[in-house]
Amino acid sequence: MTTWRLKLEYDGTEFSGWQVQPGVRTVQEELEGSLSKLLGGDQVRVVAAGRTDTGVHAWGQVVSFRTSRSRTVRQVLLGVNRGLPKDVRCVSAEMVDFDFHANADVTNKLYRYVLRVSEAGTALRRFRLWSVREQLDLVVMSEALSLLEGEHDFTTFRAAGCVAKSPVRTIARTSVAYVGDEIWVEIEGRGFLRKMVRNIVGSLYDVGTGKRDPNWMSEILEQKDRDLASATAPAQGLYLVRVDYGA
Amino acid sequence: MTTWRLKLEYDGTEFSGWQVQPGVRTVQEELEGSLSKLLGGDQVRVVAAGRTDTGVHAWGQVVSFRTSRSRTVRQVLLGVNRGLPKDVRCVSAEMVDFDFHANADVTNKLYRYVLRVSEAGTALRRFRLWSVREQLDLVVMSEALSLLEGEHDFTTFRAAGCVAKSPVRTIARTSVAYVGDEIWVEIEGRGFLRKMVRNIVGSLYDVGTGKRDPNWMSEILEQKDRDLASATAPAQGLYLVRVDYGA
Repeated sequence: MTTWRLKLEYDGTEFSGWQVQPGVRTVQEELEGSLSKLLGGDQVRVVAAGRTDTGVHAWGQVVSFRTSRSRTVRQVLLGVNRGLPKDVRCVSAEMVDFDFHANADVTNKLYRYVLRVSEAGTALRRFRLWSVREQLDLVVMSEALSLLEGEHDFTTFRAAGCVAKSPVRTIARTSVAYVGDEIWVEIEGRGFLRKMVRNIVGSLYDVGTGKRDPNWMSEILEQKDRDLASATAPAQGLYLVRVDYGA
Repeated sequence: MTTWRLKLEYDGTEFSGWQVQPGVRTVQEELEGSLSKLLGGDQVRVVAAGRTDTGVHAWGQVVSFRTSRSRTVRQVLLGVNRGLPKDVRCVSAEMVDFDFHANADVTNKLYRYVLRVSEAGTALRRFRLWSVREQLDLVVMSEALSLLEGEHDFTTFRAAGCVAKSPVRTIARTSVAYVGDEIWVEIEGRGFLRKMVRNIVGSLYDVGTGKRDPNWMSEILEQKDRDLASATAPAQGLYLVRVDYGA
């Protein structure tokens, strides 16, 4: 048996997220189908670093699986891509320690949320960012977001359907910055609750427009009440950028 | 009567190019339909700086039109976008000198062609660049491309269906550079023949891979023979970036 680790890039627009669900198109299902073809028809179950939601993109999702079939790195890379639709690409493949587990072994994940302020919106990036009309103050947004760093009960920013046992998570690093004409909100941590990043960004938007003070982020966090947060930011602005393993 | 100048961004993927043609979806037709709604049902004819082909994108296409209807800049900007599909946006609108003509008055246009070298290809940018597998040498590409600067008969790089009276054009500036993991080939000039940029990039690719010497670009240019150029580079890598007017 060999354990493999793959890095995936995908366009979330036409996927109902990562995880297999009956009757809808998911990245996991496409990948497992392609791997099965590559591995002589064997049923393959893959594990992902993070289960991205409908419409969320990935630059660097990481998955692992095991197989008794013998394949070279090149065979896996080319073969997986041959069987995948064009909106998912396997950008690297490697054989790893037998015990490697793409979810359990995560030490850090970087999520990026992309916004852009524009009256007219954008044609070329319409599925790639959240286009907003009101001017945003990045200084107060940075201040508000940094208040969430550290270990907290993130119930306020948790989706209704979240199945995690504990609402406690640790945010290791945050940043808000202009990159060209885009605003990149980055949040890093080992694990996240369902829709946590998009719920944080939705509330952060209300700070950026001046509707709320930066300290409001701390206040609603402490209340542990989902009804206090702003509307969830749309999926098309969110990217799973990178997953780290090991120290 | 007022003459208006609009700047457009569009995603060329689902358009059969700029120019109105029966039975297909074009940017011109969508724009004229939207303007007609905004201008009390008047038939409006727009003129564009450049007639982009099927699949070609624009960051900054410029168009002009005249109307006797009185509208504010804000009414035009918001109204045009309301009537346009999401893959075209009007990013600016202004009233200009009555005699302004978006095509005849062009002094310079910047076209950008985006390539990327990758074994696996890209999911998120699959409609935004030409993904190639062979390594490219940017030094020889720059050298070859610069040989086309100045006034030349560009018959070699002209599409079969090109209706221009003269094959003589002037390339004012060229460059080839890495921007992140992308290769941007930029070509500027007042006017271009049909598919000229994509034909140049197709041949430039064969220089970049080492299949041809840089001087080969000059040699085929001098032969004035379309059959000597390489295959046309695909449409999805090409952008009309900017149009300049005046000195």
